[in-house]
Amino acid sequence: MTMFDASPRLRDLQERLTRFMNEHIYPNEAEFGRQVNAGNRWEHVQLIEDLKPLAQQEGLWNLFLPPRTDSEGKFGAGLTNLEYATLCEIMGRVWWAPEIFNCNAPDTGNMEVLARYGTQEQQDRWLKPLLAGKIRSSFTMTEPEVASSDATNIQAQIVKETASDGTVEYVINGHKWWTSGAGDPRCKVTIFMGKNDPSAPKHLQQSMILIPMDAPGVTIKRMLTVFGYDDAPHGHAEVTFENVRVPASSMLLGEGRGFEIAQGRLGPGRIHHCMRLIGQAERALELMVEHSENRVAFGKKLSEQGTVREMIAKSRIEIDQARLLTLHAAHMMDTVGNKAARSQIAAIKVVAPNVALAVIDRAIQVFGGAGVSQDTPLANMYAQARTLRLADGPDAVHLETVAKSEYKAQAKQVSNTLSSKQEAVSAD
Amino acid sequence: MTMFDASPRLRDLQERLTRFMNEHIYPNEAEFGRQVNAGNRWEHVQLIEDLKPLAQQEGLWNLFLPPRTDSEGKFGAGLTNLEYATLCEIMGRVWWAPEIFNCNAPDTGNMEVLARYGTQEQQDRWLKPLLAGKIRSSFTMTEPEVASSDATNIQAQIVKETASDGTVEYVINGHKWWTSGAGDPRCKVTIFMGKNDPSAPKHLQQSMILIPMDAPGVTIKRMLTVFGYDDAPHGHAEVTFENVRVPASSMLLGEGRGFEIAQGRLGPGRIHHCMRLIGQAERALELMVEHSENRVAFGKKLSEQGTVREMIAKSRIEIDQARLLTLHAAHMMDTVGNKAARSQIAAIKVVAPNVALAVIDRAIQVFGGAGVSQDTPLANMYAQARTLRLADGPDAVHLETVAKSEYKAQAKQVSNTLSSKQEAVSAD
Amino acid sequence: MTMFDASPRLRDLQERLTRFMNEHIYPNEAEFGRQVNAGNRWEHVQLIEDLKPLAQQEGLWNLFLPPRTDSEGKFGAGLTNLEYATLCEIMGRVWWAPEIFNCNAPDTGNMEVLARYGTQEQQDRWLKPLLAGKIRSSFTMTEPEVASSDATNIQAQIVKETASDGTVEYVINGHKWWTSGAGDPRCKVTIFMGKNDPSAPKHLQQSMILIPMDAPGVTIKRMLTVFGYDDAPHGHAEVTFENVRVPASSMLLGEGRGFEIAQGRLGPGRIHHCMRLIGQAERALELMVEHSENRVAFGKKLSEQGTVREMIAKSRIEIDQARLLTLHAAHMMDTVGNKAARSQIAAIKVVAPNVALAVIDRAIQVFGGAGVSQDTPLANMYAQARTLRLADGPDAVHLETVAKSEYKAQAKQVSNTLSSKQEAVSAD
Amino acid sequence: MTMFDASPRLRDLQERLTRFMNEHIYPNEAEFGRQVNAGNRWEHVQLIEDLKPLAQQEGLWNLFLPPRTDSEGKFGAGLTNLEYATLCEIMGRVWWAPEIFNCNAPDTGNMEVLARYGTQEQQDRWLKPLLAGKIRSSFTMTEPEVASSDATNIQAQIVKETASDGTVEYVINGHKWWTSGAGDPRCKVTIFMGKNDPSAPKHLQQSMILIPMDAPGVTIKRMLTVFGYDDAPHGHAEVTFENVRVPASSMLLGEGRGFEIAQGRLGPGRIHHCMRLIGQAERALELMVEHSENRVAFGKKLSEQGTVREMIAKSRIEIDQARLLTLHAAHMMDTVGNKAARSQIAAIKVVAPNVALAVIDRAIQVFGGAGVSQDTPLANMYAQARTLRLADGPDAVHLETVAKSEYKAQAKQVSNTLSSKQEAVSAD
Repeated sequence: MTMFDASPRLRDLQERLTRFMNEHIYPNEAEFGRQVNAGNRWEHVQLIEDLKPLAQQEGLWNLFLPPRTDSEGKFGAGLTNLEYATLCEIMGRVWWAPEIFNCNAPDTGNMEVLARYGTQEQQDRWLKPLLAGKIRSSFTMTEPEVASSDATNIQAQIVKETASDGTVEYVINGHKWWTSGAGDPRCKVTIFMGKNDPSAPKHLQQSMILIPMDAPGVTIKRMLTVFGYDDAPHGHAEVTFENVRVPASSMLLGEGRGFEIAQGRLGPGRIHHCMRLIGQAERALELMVEHSENRVAFGKKLSEQGTVREMIAKSRIEIDQARLLTLHAAHMMDTVGNKAARSQIAAIKVVAPNVALAVIDRAIQVFGGAGVSQDTPLANMYAQARTLRLADGPDAVHLETVAKSEYKAQAKQVSNTLSSKQEAVSAD
Repeated sequence: MTMFDASPRLRDLQERLTRFMNEHIYPNEAEFGRQVNAGNRWEHVQLIEDLKPLAQQEGLWNLFLPPRTDSEGKFGAGLTNLEYATLCEIMGRVWWAPEIFNCNAPDTGNMEVLARYGTQEQQDRWLKPLLAGKIRSSFTMTEPEVASSDATNIQAQIVKETASDGTVEYVINGHKWWTSGAGDPRCKVTIFMGKNDPSAPKHLQQSMILIPMDAPGVTIKRMLTVFGYDDAPHGHAEVTFENVRVPASSMLLGEGRGFEIAQGRLGPGRIHHCMRLIGQAERALELMVEHSENRVAFGKKLSEQGTVREMIAKSRIEIDQARLLTLHAAHMMDTVGNKAARSQIAAIKVVAPNVALAVIDRAIQVFGGAGVSQDTPLANMYAQARTLRLADGPDAVHLETVAKSEYKAQAKQVSNTLSSKQEAVSAD
Repeated sequence: MTMFDASPRLRDLQERLTRFMNEHIYPNEAEFGRQVNAGNRWEHVQLIEDLKPLAQQEGLWNLFLPPRTDSEGKFGAGLTNLEYATLCEIMGRVWWAPEIFNCNAPDTGNMEVLARYGTQEQQDRWLKPLLAGKIRSSFTMTEPEVASSDATNIQAQIVKETASDGTVEYVINGHKWWTSGAGDPRCKVTIFMGKNDPSAPKHLQQSMILIPMDAPGVTIKRMLTVFGYDDAPHGHAEVTFENVRVPASSMLLGEGRGFEIAQGRLGPGRIHHCMRLIGQAERALELMVEHSENRVAFGKKLSEQGTVREMIAKSRIEIDQARLLTLHAAHMMDTVGNKAARSQIAAIKVVAPNVALAVIDRAIQVFGGAGVSQDTPLANMYAQARTLRLADGPDAVHLETVAKSEYKAQAKQVSNTLSSKQEAVSAD
Repeated sequence: MTMFDASPRLRDLQERLTRFMNEHIYPNEAEFGRQVNAGNRWEHVQLIEDLKPLAQQEGLWNLFLPPRTDSEGKFGAGLTNLEYATLCEIMGRVWWAPEIFNCNAPDTGNMEVLARYGTQEQQDRWLKPLLAGKIRSSFTMTEPEVASSDATNIQAQIVKETASDGTVEYVINGHKWWTSGAGDPRCKVTIFMGKNDPSAPKHLQQSMILIPMDAPGVTIKRMLTVFGYDDAPHGHAEVTFENVRVPASSMLLGEGRGFEIAQGRLGPGRIHHCMRLIGQAERALELMVEHSENRVAFGKKLSEQGTVREMIAKSRIEIDQARLLTLHAAHMMDTVGNKAARSQIAAIKVVAPNVALAVIDRAIQVFGGAGVSQDTPLANMYAQARTLRLADGPDAVHLETVAKSEYKAQAKQVSNTLSSKQEAVSAD
């Protein structure tokens, strides 16, 4: 289906992953819902824990980790962004599946940051248990008071203090929300973004720092809902940080390098999110195709009605375009680097959520009432895709990145096309 | 703002209603949420009960009831569909407000049916307490097993049985869902649609019958969610009816007249829903305008960014068009009747939900994370509008009604336009 | 079909106009094309001249002229903007029909300006023959070198010169295009917009002045095509004005009052254009409905295919919405004035061309090859509607007007809605 | 920019082709218009003839011809569909450029048919001069009386007659239009599709046959316009065939094999058209970017206005998606064959014209009046893209192909996904 040839190893991974989904995930969708709803919503779900060892046994574990982050050969599945992207789609077809393979956000991004920039100490304390699936982590950046899609707006403070005995600590204060994963009791650490030097040049003001979730001063104020859903057991929290103290060794990469780290994690994260959304869209399309074969209205199966068939055809075409665009962006990251691929990475952030939303919306329309209810995964899929359309900036922010790149590209090119245009006259 | 001149009485009602909203509803939005979340979600909300007497005192009560349904002058505010529509928009701006004025669905439709077709006994038992706001009611039509947008698909049975002593009863069996309002403990009666004669001509097979919610055999199986919302304390239920027995006097209007009743309630119900959606869209637009004035991103207020301004302008234009179309449909109902206005009534069912969804979606985009969370009413508004886009048939069903009407209209007209068209040649 | 009741006089005009169209216009569409293509494209078309006296006899002449422009009761059909709008739609169904009734642009706007602001001398020389249909006129504003949707960009100069004998003249220089109607040999005068005082406040720099088309220094450089059409015999010209001299009495209203005049002609012109576009869209819809009944593909009539029926239904709904919005804008102009209706007048400028384009495009799709060819009026209609989407500013300019008005409206309103919003919590 | 690595030879061709466009095509756009408008529109254009030898010298000639059609190694550039597609985009940037390289429709399709299915005699008489660019050809299929997007509707007759002396001839009768290229005086032959056996199974009724344009009974009735353009000097003709007689050796491949040939030419033709459209869209985007840098409105360059930047970003994204989809379809044709790629080939037929139209339309909007006039190539590009959206069937036909393929794909897959769906319950 793609313009690149999958290696035998990748093909094997794709097949085994698909089989795992067929055998262990799809048949357990109802069970997952039951377990979440049964007890305390904010506890781990036994089903997840039961399936993880199976995935590990099958070698379907930590597939996201690129080899380039691993100086000693310890970490990393050795897949390119393009290769892993195809696996991401398969796992993403069920929203809670990626965790089974230790491939869920924000843990993947956090692990990648730790693998790439972490000190040995940081890796020992946090990366190892994360890679083993023993703990979970969260990512803390967005603030309720400011438009956080413009990261320079962020106001949280990370202040260095040197005690009389020479001990250096960072004191952290901030009001954050959309701290994803913070509702999970196994969430032990967060990567926190804040300003350590408001007087520095705009892109050197921010740092990223590791904060244990149980550090004094860290308070989960409440869990946020997303269209009525609380996304238990992971959830999105509003969290306050009041005079939270962490040792100097918690700083990631160095003061003022927050943006640099953010840039690094941005590309792969986008690919992952987008491919998962494409997986969701494929799933919605499958459900729509199937349901339309099984319903009759006004004397005809839904699948025989032209408008339904058109919805299905459009969905197929939009999905295929979104997938190709995302794979192409991944391929550019692999070949020319994240920076040169900036416009492409921005483009998929606009396309994939919108396509997923359009396809899921059509599926809801075909299902009728069942589509918005708990009897299909569609409404939940919609809510998540809608959130991803916002997360990390609304469409406008990313379209601006694309536009900027377009103006730059044209400025470079002193093209005959353009100079000749001025007297271009079409035959009339 | 409209092409018709509001009478002094209507203008007065509009002003008092707006004042009531400003004084009692908007300031209590947070409180409403708190009360619903506080205790058992499926109990009445004290705030609602406290506000109802105020609305009654102000004469803002049962405004929906048209005078034509009232032979004795007892019921009815005497407003035309067009007039009431304008009030409906004002009340609809907050989703839980209409109940304060005893103007909420499905009670309004049920009361109208009872007022128009009910026997004296039926009116005494059910209409009076409904008009007084003492009890609530539900409407039971949709079935999970069939595409219920085609009402001829409905399979529930209403069978007449004559006992040896000559007593006539109806025995009802059916599996229903989306029985709106059934979660409310004060819901005492439902209007139930089912087939009493599957051998009759297609539109004479169905009847509507009154069933007390506490009748033996009526079982609420579960409450359905809409996206993640349960719409407590009203809710949408899956309900089974197993050998439910009601006396012969429970039949509405007569056996086989279910479609006739459905047609009668259809038009006003559509107007109400659409105007409430327009109220919701106006609300979303206001919030978007306000929020965009208060947020800064990339060095500019959101309200200074061209793409945000364009979203606001488009929203204004779409809302105005939807309102005019709906008012025009109401005016046609008032002047040429529901049947002649069929195409117009179908058209607004497509337009209003889609416009509301588009506007709310833009508002969510402007708000970012807050837009999908419980901190704005937007996500809930979206979920409800999305459901109304399905309720009573998806877009395709209503577009088909419009198309049919268009072909009919043209068939009638033996227009010179058309006959001359065949040799129409444009100057080139 | 509308929310206002047409007066008996208006109803009579509507009926007689429709009859005239049926009897004299539609049957002559092919003939019109033949006559234009037959000889010199830039001569008057005999058919037009033959039909004008008939229209005059029927009292279907100069209907556009509002009574308020006529101090002595000489001019004006006495119709409100709302009333005339409905006639405009009827005439607009065939693009060359309005001229038959002396109701075509830009003559109508020019006549209105002359009737409202013209001196007796100006009216005698230009308005009278225009009202009689003896001559035609053009309007000269747009310039190729600048974005003319921002009228302050205009660079043409109107310089007052006093000769030694005290005679005052204006000397005009400018490079203009899209001078509509200038290709017509009967076009005798143009209303020209240019700057007489670049140092004045921005909206007082411009004047409008009357220039005879045969004045020395006026040169038609070429006719512009619109898509491939030249719009013969009227056309759009590129015209240069080199040291054109006109007497002082040619100034309209007074120096620096060009914007004021432009504002005055803006509203009615928009209504006219929009209603004509709606007429075109209705025509396209009729053709689409008819053709789809007469074509078979893949074993079914096009009219039996769900996707075609959906195109027809959407067209009907969009047209009805556009018409209501335009009539509503006209009604506001009649009741609260052009200034208060500014946002509404901007809105229709966006909606009507876009709706017409969408409907015509669907009709083209249904017709296939015939749709883009000279065998239907559709492609020509499309080209004209596309141009109207640009003329007088692209969508973005008008959306900005709507947005500005929306922010202003909200700023005025110190609404409880808004202040209470901040703690709005939806029930979850 | 793509996921496949261009070979050194392909890269070289891309570079030389781009250079040729820069040196010889763009600088001559105005000259081309002048030459077409100067004399008899239906004569060859000298500029074209002058440039052809240059292209031949550079080896930029007949690049379209795939090697598989060439048994003796005489024909064919040896490029895959995927490879040639990238060249097609470059040539397609100017609508009249492909002919310079002997790569223009319908000649390419005709040459491919002759190369693949032609007898030696047919190849000697027609293919050789076509490959040398000495003559031109047309393709005759569409009929005005029937919806020709359903090719089984075609009514033209090809009847075999055996004379008394045993000579076999075909007698052809039919009324055709949209015979592309027939206006060119060098057009010497047409490939004609008609029914030779209406009693045969539906897909075996049609044949394709070679008819010299100067055969008695072939009459060009008139040239069709596309919007207002006549596409001189090639054009689209309405042609009648009255008792046209051709020898038996004119039949292509064999009686009843018309559909088979049509299928074979379909895939590559689609790729070519779509890539040319993408070239056109890229061109429009470049012009839009450039023009927006050079215009000021309301105090800002157009390129500084958010809505313009958004139009540019969306255009970039849509073009990239359309290109990837088309290249992917070409790659599938190369690897799994035209039949297996049927859905993909249908998909691009929907996507590419619509994307091109959207981008060109935005460019027109940015240019204002110049955009619809002869001063930019945009309006002509729009007209051609609009026609390609119809040619070969409207969107609905191709979407139906995609939908059919989707239902088939799902039917094959007895997926656990689906069976498990029925009890899928999302966590709420």
